[in-house]
Amino acid sequence: MKHLESINAALERYLSTGDMPKLMHEAMSYSVFAGGKRLRPRMCLAAAELAGGSIEDAMPIACALEMIHTYSLIHDDLPCMDDDDYRRGRLSNHKVYGEANALLAGDGLLSLAFETMLREGISKVAHAPRYYEAAQVVAHGAGVFGMVAGQWADLANENNPDADAETLTYIHRRKTGALITASIVSGAIVANADESTVAALRSFGEHYGVLFQITDDILDVVGDAETVGKTLGKDAEQSKLTYPSLYGLEESRRMAEREAELAAAAVLPFGEKAAWFTALAKAALTRTY
Amino acid sequence: MKHLESINAALERYLSTGDMPKLMHEAMSYSVFAGGKRLRPRMCLAAAELAGGSIEDAMPIACALEMIHTYSLIHDDLPCMDDDDYRRGRLSNHKVYGEANALLAGDGLLSLAFETMLREGISKVAHAPRYYEAAQVVAHGAGVFGMVAGQWADLANENNPDADAETLTYIHRRKTGALITASIVSGAIVANADESTVAALRSFGEHYGVLFQITDDILDVVGDAETVGKTLGKDAEQSKLTYPSLYGLEESRRMAEREAELAAAAVLPFGEKAAWFTALAKAALTRTY
Repeated sequence: MKHLESINAALERYLSTGDMPKLMHEAMSYSVFAGGKRLRPRMCLAAAELAGGSIEDAMPIACALEMIHTYSLIHDDLPCMDDDDYRRGRLSNHKVYGEANALLAGDGLLSLAFETMLREGISKVAHAPRYYEAAQVVAHGAGVFGMVAGQWADLANENNPDADAETLTYIHRRKTGALITASIVSGAIVANADESTVAALRSFGEHYGVLFQITDDILDVVGDAETVGKTLGKDAEQSKLTYPSLYGLEESRRMAEREAELAAAAVLPFGEKAAWFTALAKAALTRTY
Repeated sequence: MKHLESINAALERYLSTGDMPKLMHEAMSYSVFAGGKRLRPRMCLAAAELAGGSIEDAMPIACALEMIHTYSLIHDDLPCMDDDDYRRGRLSNHKVYGEANALLAGDGLLSLAFETMLREGISKVAHAPRYYEAAQVVAHGAGVFGMVAGQWADLANENNPDADAETLTYIHRRKTGALITASIVSGAIVANADESTVAALRSFGEHYGVLFQITDDILDVVGDAETVGKTLGKDAEQSKLTYPSLYGLEESRRMAEREAELAAAAVLPFGEKAAWFTALAKAALTRTY
């Protein structure tokens, strides 16, 4: 998979830049190297590449995105949140290291994401403005106007009978969409892309974010139907606001197809250079049915 | 108190820069505006002032330090950590907003700290290198080589019979010392201070950090003795590794005095310009006995 090895090597390096408690390093690494597909960093690097930028310059941003994604999964799995004992087929972080340590491993990864971007940026002062603008895009997507707000709204609406399509859109634009869009936009910005390129890639990111969430929701339903009894601690989720629960399975599939088309259309002007993005949108569809 | 009002006004502003869930904003504000003394931002601004820099330039860094300090208190109070129902005489964040929301309010404040520094920095591109160097100092003090590592080590040694003076020093240098030192050093750096000024202020910060921890530990003992029955959920702490438990109360007091002297000596070369720092070190002593 494109860039996967170099992303993993950079993550190893960034997680080992100094002296920290050995077990804390292990706890952070446990979740960072849990077989993730590195979707967000790969999107960031692909956007930088499409815009003619260097992979090396974008790498600290790309890895920060993965650290932020990982911290959000660790905190999400905690008993006070989703209370999930498993993640990607392995015990979740707090089941291995305990709740307090999992909380700190998450806090540590979020801090390290920003520390990595800032430190690596200082050695790249020649292009500091665009580099820090990209880091700010990541911060915005990850924080109280993006992912954290989405998490909050998701929790707040868990048992809200009035939650509707608008609520669903609000939640997912922030909870998953914001960091996915930030991944692409930050990659374009660090590569000094012009405004129209940034806008086109942002549009791809926004449609892909929705597509990703719809197919995730569909997979939850289809997966649950196929693996009855295998899902643990997921009972509460059946009452959750999802695309299938709101629109039905068939309409959700049509919506996913539509988002994939819109995502592909957004990068059409780049022709062959956008092949990776077009394939990504297509692959999201086939992973479901 | 010097700069207190302008710090609070800036915090209000930075916490209200965009659209976020109303209750999330309230939960974050609840802890940020809980009557803290703003020690870290005041140290940052005072260092910037001493070095001849502008308060305005240092303000985003100063407020980020307070947001980071506040997030650490919210996460610290959670049931899986210290399980404290009260903080500064009010219910702790999770007792008011629930555990999941308190976790997210903390994550939100940590994210907002970095987003604020990055966003405000972009409008200050003229002095970007030193501004981002200061932000990196904050990140380093807050993260896996600083505060988070200190928290981890503190937890790891809670019931360790072999924990000794070296362990205590390791923990407190990181848990409280790292962010305090980062507060002063970041203020000096954002003001473009020369190397010897940064080194002198760093030395003040390191000694003040130890002083702060010793007097905190002493206050815990003295306070507990004077307010038997008033402390809630603190039973477990009696077995904790502290300066009084390791050195006794009298020796701890002598150590605090020594650290105050060393802190004052570090800023002696600045004469009257360092009056605020000298007074701060002195005040730390008198707050205990």
